[in-house]
Amino acid sequence: MASNRGVAYVGPGRVEVQSIPFPKLEDPRGRRAEHGVILRVVSTNICGSDQHMVRGRTTAPSGLILGHEITGEVLEVGRDVETLQKGDLVSVPFNVACGRCRTCKEQHTGVCLTVNPSRAGGAYGYVDMGGWIGGQAEYVMVPYADFNLLKFPDRDQAMAKIRDLTCLSDILPTGYHGAVTAGVGPGSTVYIAGAGPVGLAAAASARLLGAAAVIIGDVNPKRLEHPRALGYLTVDLSLDVPLGEQIAEILGTPEVDCAVDAVGFEARGHGHDGAQHEAPATVLNSLMEVTREAGRIGIPGLYVTDDPGGVDQAAKKGSLSIRLGLGWAKSHSFHTGQTPVLKYNRALMQAILWDRIKIADTVGVEVISLDQAPRGYSEFDLGAPKKFVIDPHGLVPA
Amino acid sequence: MASNRGVAYVGPGRVEVQSIPFPKLEDPRGRRAEHGVILRVVSTNICGSDQHMVRGRTTAPSGLILGHEITGEVLEVGRDVETLQKGDLVSVPFNVACGRCRTCKEQHTGVCLTVNPSRAGGAYGYVDMGGWIGGQAEYVMVPYADFNLLKFPDRDQAMAKIRDLTCLSDILPTGYHGAVTAGVGPGSTVYIAGAGPVGLAAAASARLLGAAAVIIGDVNPKRLEHPRALGYLTVDLSLDVPLGEQIAEILGTPEVDCAVDAVGFEARGHGHDGAQHEAPATVLNSLMEVTREAGRIGIPGLYVTDDPGGVDQAAKKGSLSIRLGLGWAKSHSFHTGQTPVLKYNRALMQAILWDRIKIADTVGVEVISLDQAPRGYSEFDLGAPKKFVIDPHGLVPA
Amino acid sequence: MASNRGVAYVGPGRVEVQSIPFPKLEDPRGRRAEHGVILRVVSTNICGSDQHMVRGRTTAPSGLILGHEITGEVLEVGRDVETLQKGDLVSVPFNVACGRCRTCKEQHTGVCLTVNPSRAGGAYGYVDMGGWIGGQAEYVMVPYADFNLLKFPDRDQAMAKIRDLTCLSDILPTGYHGAVTAGVGPGSTVYIAGAGPVGLAAAASARLLGAAAVIIGDVNPKRLEHPRALGYLTVDLSLDVPLGEQIAEILGTPEVDCAVDAVGFEARGHGHDGAQHEAPATVLNSLMEVTREAGRIGIPGLYVTDDPGGVDQAAKKGSLSIRLGLGWAKSHSFHTGQTPVLKYNRALMQAILWDRIKIADTVGVEVISLDQAPRGYSEFDLGAPKKFVIDPHGLVPA
Amino acid sequence: MASNRGVAYVGPGRVEVQSIPFPKLEDPRGRRAEHGVILRVVSTNICGSDQHMVRGRTTAPSGLILGHEITGEVLEVGRDVETLQKGDLVSVPFNVACGRCRTCKEQHTGVCLTVNPSRAGGAYGYVDMGGWIGGQAEYVMVPYADFNLLKFPDRDQAMAKIRDLTCLSDILPTGYHGAVTAGVGPGSTVYIAGAGPVGLAAAASARLLGAAAVIIGDVNPKRLEHPRALGYLTVDLSLDVPLGEQIAEILGTPEVDCAVDAVGFEARGHGHDGAQHEAPATVLNSLMEVTREAGRIGIPGLYVTDDPGGVDQAAKKGSLSIRLGLGWAKSHSFHTGQTPVLKYNRALMQAILWDRIKIADTVGVEVISLDQAPRGYSEFDLGAPKKFVIDPHGLVPA
Repeated sequence: MASNRGVAYVGPGRVEVQSIPFPKLEDPRGRRAEHGVILRVVSTNICGSDQHMVRGRTTAPSGLILGHEITGEVLEVGRDVETLQKGDLVSVPFNVACGRCRTCKEQHTGVCLTVNPSRAGGAYGYVDMGGWIGGQAEYVMVPYADFNLLKFPDRDQAMAKIRDLTCLSDILPTGYHGAVTAGVGPGSTVYIAGAGPVGLAAAASARLLGAAAVIIGDVNPKRLEHPRALGYLTVDLSLDVPLGEQIAEILGTPEVDCAVDAVGFEARGHGHDGAQHEAPATVLNSLMEVTREAGRIGIPGLYVTDDPGGVDQAAKKGSLSIRLGLGWAKSHSFHTGQTPVLKYNRALMQAILWDRIKIADTVGVEVISLDQAPRGYSEFDLGAPKKFVIDPHGLVPA
Repeated sequence: MASNRGVAYVGPGRVEVQSIPFPKLEDPRGRRAEHGVILRVVSTNICGSDQHMVRGRTTAPSGLILGHEITGEVLEVGRDVETLQKGDLVSVPFNVACGRCRTCKEQHTGVCLTVNPSRAGGAYGYVDMGGWIGGQAEYVMVPYADFNLLKFPDRDQAMAKIRDLTCLSDILPTGYHGAVTAGVGPGSTVYIAGAGPVGLAAAASARLLGAAAVIIGDVNPKRLEHPRALGYLTVDLSLDVPLGEQIAEILGTPEVDCAVDAVGFEARGHGHDGAQHEAPATVLNSLMEVTREAGRIGIPGLYVTDDPGGVDQAAKKGSLSIRLGLGWAKSHSFHTGQTPVLKYNRALMQAILWDRIKIADTVGVEVISLDQAPRGYSEFDLGAPKKFVIDPHGLVPA
Repeated sequence: MASNRGVAYVGPGRVEVQSIPFPKLEDPRGRRAEHGVILRVVSTNICGSDQHMVRGRTTAPSGLILGHEITGEVLEVGRDVETLQKGDLVSVPFNVACGRCRTCKEQHTGVCLTVNPSRAGGAYGYVDMGGWIGGQAEYVMVPYADFNLLKFPDRDQAMAKIRDLTCLSDILPTGYHGAVTAGVGPGSTVYIAGAGPVGLAAAASARLLGAAAVIIGDVNPKRLEHPRALGYLTVDLSLDVPLGEQIAEILGTPEVDCAVDAVGFEARGHGHDGAQHEAPATVLNSLMEVTREAGRIGIPGLYVTDDPGGVDQAAKKGSLSIRLGLGWAKSHSFHTGQTPVLKYNRALMQAILWDRIKIADTVGVEVISLDQAPRGYSEFDLGAPKKFVIDPHGLVPA
Repeated sequence: MASNRGVAYVGPGRVEVQSIPFPKLEDPRGRRAEHGVILRVVSTNICGSDQHMVRGRTTAPSGLILGHEITGEVLEVGRDVETLQKGDLVSVPFNVACGRCRTCKEQHTGVCLTVNPSRAGGAYGYVDMGGWIGGQAEYVMVPYADFNLLKFPDRDQAMAKIRDLTCLSDILPTGYHGAVTAGVGPGSTVYIAGAGPVGLAAAASARLLGAAAVIIGDVNPKRLEHPRALGYLTVDLSLDVPLGEQIAEILGTPEVDCAVDAVGFEARGHGHDGAQHEAPATVLNSLMEVTREAGRIGIPGLYVTDDPGGVDQAAKKGSLSIRLGLGWAKSHSFHTGQTPVLKYNRALMQAILWDRIKIADTVGVEVISLDQAPRGYSEFDLGAPKKFVIDPHGLVPA
């Protein structure tokens, strides 16, 4: 049991499975972590934000062990842990949070003040997020386990739905956060920019929240096929038809109640020519156009403070040319930031366990082995409409 | 066109269809109402609260024209009306509201301060609610029409869904208000006391709001058959098994996140013997038992200030023996009052038009003619699991 | 340092200062509590709810060490504590909370699910609240210290305002919770039932929240003198003038926007005769009368599940004859429960440190020594308009 | 009485008092407006946003009658008006709102959908806001009077406080909206960018809301003298000391809980050199720096869709280079738009009438005659720290 293997970033475009140390109850600063547990990883997903690192678009060092979407079984329990026992099956929120600082106490676990010395907010296996070792591995350490972990009530029931429950660590709450902050509720009309996993999770969340009509847009029409097959409405942003016109064809009005930016800073332009190039402010500016007066815009898509690969000097510093005057004229509000998974995951678990949401099907879960992780990364990077879930111990039922 | 017919309360247990005057743009105080419209009634539902009057349990005078659940077509428009035109198909909230007082401006249209000289809150065809003539008739006048009326966007689409849309005037928003004030959201477990139309509408609303598990209880096991067939969970309160135990069998825990009282002051006791007698505090006291800590209790079920038929002196004055200490120990909150329909009906209309809720099937809509209204009243009073919808002009498609 | 002394309940009407064991890092179940700290108590207040026990109106056993309003200096730190150090000055919320259960994570620390095996919610020095040893002592143990404790930013500044800051452990947040749950905000008119410390703290909180007019009522006119001197409006409930009339004389209308029940289950009746007797539903029923439509009623006053001294059989079980029909007609909501101190204390500390609230003067803080505690209890029981603060080590500046 | 005079914009930098027609009960489209009233103007304020027009920075036509901050006495009542009578003293929200559209019903009166054919949102005396004639005049027409007008409860009391109450039409609610949307509450630390009337009103509002510390910044140190004299904290943005450092000197930390942009699109840079030039994104970018994690940024300062005088091509279209990545990293939210005055003015009126806020002193009200209006405009444009209130009939007590 003392061995371990994990997915390492080794350089732009390259990841590999390496032997790594078995986790210890110790934090990145070398302090004993009696509040932690060691998990046998049951499933761990590849995330679109991992791709930012793998594409070499960050300062991630070679050797960084990836993985912040983790579901596991408790193997070893620190002395200070009270609510968990060996054998418990748990979902790990991607945010590392201490449960003891002001923002954690206020449920803003995405910006925990203590787990990352360089800025607010921590995560597993991510550059600049506190140095917590990633979970695309056989075993991983989770600190502040009583606070962070969500225990599934019944192990067998959970294993039977593990392809859905694995989405609780990030992708589902992130889409849900986008929908919630956009103000989605019963009867809403919703536009979601981006048909990647975050967009699809936002769409499934909007439906769970009771939305009347959920429209998904993408510059890649191939990515729209799957959501259309699931009954979502779609608009093709590679066409030279303005977004508002496409929405009006569906709704009878060019505006929606709520909008979600599930794209982030690597956005492309709209239209046939536009879609060929990165144009980071495109999504937000178009959302202001198509969101109704007094509407809200949820922004789960990632915007960064520094982007070495940005299209211009402004983008390299995380600045975008936003048509704020338009949003102001329409009394919009804008909601950003990492999702505080802990705020939502219990409710979403219940929705999964009671068959109210089919998130695995929606985001296209495909289970692979740990050794297949490098292939998963490259397929995902090429735009495969899938959510790759690594199953390091062969525990996920077929 | 100058003729009119409506359903009149004539005495305890008796209603009849009478010739009545064609409506005028005039309020109950005889003032000209240029803000009003006259509607040709397309559909108008019998409500459980109408039964309180018909059973002789209020001071309703003989001759009162009943009906506060109205959907209609605009026939005549007052001078001050700006947003409606002849031919528009509209839903009428059961609350008469002026749109000009403090509570209306704050969306609390259930307690409008001006439309009822004797207390806050007005309604059509109801004793002590301001004297507005009821809409179980061929024609009816609706005041403050721009403010009150919800116009359906497309007439043909609306007529195709009229059995669902007719539920927007009261029953659906009332159930929804119960669920919303109980704090129902994605993943919630919900207990709804009462399987009558309000309870069923609350259940459908809870589902629309994303609830994980919706449990309906009733002292009459026959009323549970229909919701069970629709996929709702049920508990039989005529059994001598405590409610908490029955819930625990379903959920694994004796408590729910959210509870709704869809019964009100005419509640019966629980258990085989209890269910034989009125016991007005039973529902609320049992809800405190089965609602989790920090949970909320929504109370759309009607409680009255005066009840000549109350079981004891306290009940006659609207007083109940509430075990408040229990709710206090669990940090409960309690949410009462007439539903402000206007706050919810637009969103619920969208949910209906986009097929997100099947409210007609859920509450058991059965369309009858105006002449069949007396029969509808007596069947409903006998406990028929139906929502009778009067179609005075034969406009509702079969 | 291994000695300790504390205030013990010894029998109805009697408390005494006893030698007690020095606290250990151990919970009431005998488990090691490395998450805890031992505090040197700097100040610890006598609470109205302590009186319920001392009057013999509970099942509190002889020898119970009292005290749940504690401010202290960290003396010893458990191994798992991360954010606190020896010498830190801290405020202790009266609720014992684990920070790891569902309700704690949702900020409902008043109903923590784990610290009290017999029901939700724990407290120091209180019967049926989990067996945590009270803090009216020289030293006390506080568990889950990182989560529970509020550290004052500057020790000297804090000691200079310690008479105000000592109110953060219970009385100020409790009054504030009453005002917040009653919906008090800028411009509100507020009625507060009860001129004891909770009522006065609610009044000060209402003012902090921007209330326009704050009216305090009591059956004991002597208790109204102090708030009147501080600029609050008052009504005398021992007069035979209805409450609504008295309010109308002040506001020009018989209703307020928001109401707070700062009395609880030991309420007396209104009017000259009424005030002679306990009448537990009086406050709530009168609040429904004087609260406007769609208003909210905050209930920080304690209602219990069992009251051996209750006026009748119903009261002994915590049942009250509530005129719910009246509240329902006015669309009221009712908000009960122990205050989750943690949710509010940081903001209120800031308000104190920046001189926005003078809570010590408002509630009548009087500092006494530990040996004077028995006298404090009896004076308070006789109705002294004071908040007694025990200073066990003579640390509070004169 | 059939004569009238008003302040007209006649060209860049020039306004003059002209004879204008006496108002009619008629809307800008020439339709009879029986829902309206004609007011004798009691006081009408010059607003910073009027200056945008007067500086020639909009497409306002010569002859436009200015003025959207109006308090008046009802002189003539349309036939459909129900709640107002001749002689009533009323405050006019600057937003013209119909009270009948979806956004008005949801209290978003700043973006009423019907009163302005060219976009959402109407106002009196403002370019592109629907053509409603301004109120810097002797008489003015107010449409939808029952919905729009706030009646003062007592005429004499109101005239005694008219210098404060005149601030209810715009400046106080606008500052308050900024504070509320920034999340200001008891104990908050607040930074307000801009010491003009909106900033000062935001500061007074923050204090009313219970803020612990309110810091105002401006590039013009002279404008900081008045708030400092009133007890507000200030930072001088013309110094070459970073804003965060100046805040840290005051609070001990470089971040505040809540931030308000009371400057808008005509912002200047920071520091000695920066303050010489317009730099429209400066304020928002600096607010992201100094607002804590999970904080909110309220933006009552005006941003426009088109600005002929913008510093560059982007600014001319209302686009700004926003460092969104920074806000995203801190989980900020941003709240924009015209203030919905109706949502707040009743509560703020109560705060004024009960002496909880001294807004006239805070914003520097100075009463002038109608003929002095041109001088008021030029003094205000030169930076006079005053709020000019025109008193067309000499009714304001000295």
